[in-house]
Amino acid sequence: MSREKLTKIILPEERMPRFWYNVQADMPTPLSPALHPETKQPLGPEDLAPLFPMGLIAQEVSTERFLEIPPEVRELYKLWRPSPLYRAHGLEKALDTQCRIYYKYEGVSPVGSHKLNSALPQVYYNKMEGITRLTTETGAGQWGTALALACKLFGLECMVYMVRVSFDQKPYRRMIMNVYGANCVSSPSTLTESGRQALAKDPDTPGTLAIAISEAVEDAMQRADTHYSLGSVLNHVCVHQSIIGQEVKLQMEMVDDYPDIVIGCCGGGSNFAGIAFPFIPDKLAGKKVRLVGVEPSACPTMTRGVFAYDFGDVAGFTPMLKMCTLGHDFTPAGIHAGGLRYHGESPLVSQLYQDGLIEATSVMQKGVFEAAMLFSRAEGIVPAPESSHAIRVAIDEALKAKEEGIIKSIVLNLSGHGQMDLTAYDNYLSGQMEDYAPTDEEIQASLKTLPTL
Amino acid sequence: MSREKLTKIILPEERMPRFWYNVQADMPTPLSPALHPETKQPLGPEDLAPLFPMGLIAQEVSTERFLEIPPEVRELYKLWRPSPLYRAHGLEKALDTQCRIYYKYEGVSPVGSHKLNSALPQVYYNKMEGITRLTTETGAGQWGTALALACKLFGLECMVYMVRVSFDQKPYRRMIMNVYGANCVSSPSTLTESGRQALAKDPDTPGTLAIAISEAVEDAMQRADTHYSLGSVLNHVCVHQSIIGQEVKLQMEMVDDYPDIVIGCCGGGSNFAGIAFPFIPDKLAGKKVRLVGVEPSACPTMTRGVFAYDFGDVAGFTPMLKMCTLGHDFTPAGIHAGGLRYHGESPLVSQLYQDGLIEATSVMQKGVFEAAMLFSRAEGIVPAPESSHAIRVAIDEALKAKEEGIIKSIVLNLSGHGQMDLTAYDNYLSGQMEDYAPTDEEIQASLKTLPTL
Repeated sequence: MSREKLTKIILPEERMPRFWYNVQADMPTPLSPALHPETKQPLGPEDLAPLFPMGLIAQEVSTERFLEIPPEVRELYKLWRPSPLYRAHGLEKALDTQCRIYYKYEGVSPVGSHKLNSALPQVYYNKMEGITRLTTETGAGQWGTALALACKLFGLECMVYMVRVSFDQKPYRRMIMNVYGANCVSSPSTLTESGRQALAKDPDTPGTLAIAISEAVEDAMQRADTHYSLGSVLNHVCVHQSIIGQEVKLQMEMVDDYPDIVIGCCGGGSNFAGIAFPFIPDKLAGKKVRLVGVEPSACPTMTRGVFAYDFGDVAGFTPMLKMCTLGHDFTPAGIHAGGLRYHGESPLVSQLYQDGLIEATSVMQKGVFEAAMLFSRAEGIVPAPESSHAIRVAIDEALKAKEEGIIKSIVLNLSGHGQMDLTAYDNYLSGQMEDYAPTDEEIQASLKTLPTL
Repeated sequence: MSREKLTKIILPEERMPRFWYNVQADMPTPLSPALHPETKQPLGPEDLAPLFPMGLIAQEVSTERFLEIPPEVRELYKLWRPSPLYRAHGLEKALDTQCRIYYKYEGVSPVGSHKLNSALPQVYYNKMEGITRLTTETGAGQWGTALALACKLFGLECMVYMVRVSFDQKPYRRMIMNVYGANCVSSPSTLTESGRQALAKDPDTPGTLAIAISEAVEDAMQRADTHYSLGSVLNHVCVHQSIIGQEVKLQMEMVDDYPDIVIGCCGGGSNFAGIAFPFIPDKLAGKKVRLVGVEPSACPTMTRGVFAYDFGDVAGFTPMLKMCTLGHDFTPAGIHAGGLRYHGESPLVSQLYQDGLIEATSVMQKGVFEAAMLFSRAEGIVPAPESSHAIRVAIDEALKAKEEGIIKSIVLNLSGHGQMDLTAYDNYLSGQMEDYAPTDEEIQASLKTLPTL
């Protein structure tokens, strides 16, 4: 097939990968162990068992390169996978660039984002262990929506703690979770001790993912029928999302192309990991592909944080992970990309960043929406605010290449559509949107809450 | 390929049809001519020229079987076409049916519905004639969104009059039209004489498509740079939508199956026409396929209306069309399927209904949402309220077949997703939804407004 002509590069259903890729097999520096929040000793699998099923714990610590996708999960992946890789002809024309820009479109999933890639196996492994109820947190609502649907498809109950600023900004998200049969409450809530404490500390808090995680973990710890589920950050989530990048590689082969740059937005890191990690072996073998994670300036975990042990949640219930962090007490401004408002970063992404195998950059909210508007009007798809961070950098890279008189092949992860985020666009179009970035003092103050070892 | 295994039946991009199918070539009874609203004489092409470009007028009256899709339109179709045909494995399991249920999923278009199939060629032919601005009406907002994007892609201005009840129920629709650069106002508005008259008559009117059409036509008649665009009803719109059914036929061949029943919801009729008309030649050749149009009980145009000449709009600006109608003064209850609140029905669909080549049925709103909930939880996709009318009947047909101990192949048109219609689901889930059907007296009263010839 000609690389010039096709708009959608479609991988046949039967070529959908049968294995997830696990980057732990190929890391030059192995991960530092997760530590118990109280004893501060390395965790054993049994320490995670109250929250996670053994199937996921095994993936969390595995160093096997390929992990089999269970047939039950693979059947459900077919509801939307393989997802299309688009050549962005319209955007290229709008930018007047010779660069080839591709976007992997995960918004075709029934919930409109990549999150279902991990929600399905997470629910599957819990069901195999007899668990009947899952709790989770959600920022923008993409993860909560995905877990709600996955629970419904496998017949489990689902309880979602949704960060308050998003709960208020995005009412449709609560509604779609209800359609899928989940219970969704604004976090901090009065249902948990962690929620009540957060409200006592600041009744007007916009909430954070770190608070919502504390609530979901606390809830799960109190019931034997209940486990906890996390939509990003952890190794097994990055493993599940690797199907994205594996498909991209096959699709790029179909048009006889290979990327110079692969770009994904970074909150907890799983969507970036998903598209980027399958390129790590190529990079280690000498290929010159750049892997770029894009953070919001309001929550610059890699670009302005430290690499240190920290808790995943505000209350210190979770294990301590060695990762890029702004401190678990950090409260990012209430930007519209609620899915990126997380103080930490996947330990896998963080370690690979330390080792120079991936790059990180940060962008301001208004520039992100400027890029999202250009993309919407050129390609038709209205992108999610989170995914638009990747679009911003893809555009900047294409414009830079034009200035330098070179031609690049650029691939970005369009991890979701923004049809349920239209209030954010309305805010931008009415000229009311503001840019945010924490001061150095704010970051230093938050870093003081890092646990001592 | 086995018909049992595949979930998505994907037609390769290069097999996307190059021609639209025009049912006028095959109708046993030719269409009655459209009449001039004042002289009541058959219209000539020149009578339509103030509102439509010649390229569309030619399609409106053509009796050629196949009409070529312009390459510029075909390129843009590739943004989402060919659209997938899904085997509804999840729904079949939930119904415990042996029937094979397929849904053609038009919600993968960037605007989330089938409407872009006609918006793109309509804008294209207008642009070819030097028109720089289009006006239109929209019910639920699907058509307005599609025309907004098509105008942006071809560089035209777009003005949308949106029926008030939907404008209020579905704020995200106005927002997405703004993202695509269109102006969208609530109808009746104070911008037109027709709008002001409607408001004077009833300041609290929920609006109707017939009023919004009057406003859009009035606006277009006053500016030489402006034409009017209609998202359903007219012959050329049904022609454009025929790509749906043509793809379905190729996709069913791919799995070696052929439908016993083809189902689409019916408002103005174009989405039903799109999936059903390409099966008309087979039916005329003796195939036993049933073609079923589904109306809302609140607006039962075919099932309880008359087949007569009527205006397309409330003010009597449009030509008179021979069609199934409840009278152009009919105000349907404010059901959530705003796209189906139209007093008339495509003259093509109406004539084929008279000739017994298609069937019609009507369903109540709550049953529609019950079906939509079942579908959402079994297939993952949250369907648009309009499309859910087709789902309701597909489920009923499958259950009836089970009772009768027979196995059927059922295809429905899932014309759009409902992620921007979640307030409707919220209304259903909170137990506040009501059923509506007009009384015989209401219909009789409205039919008194039919024009005399």
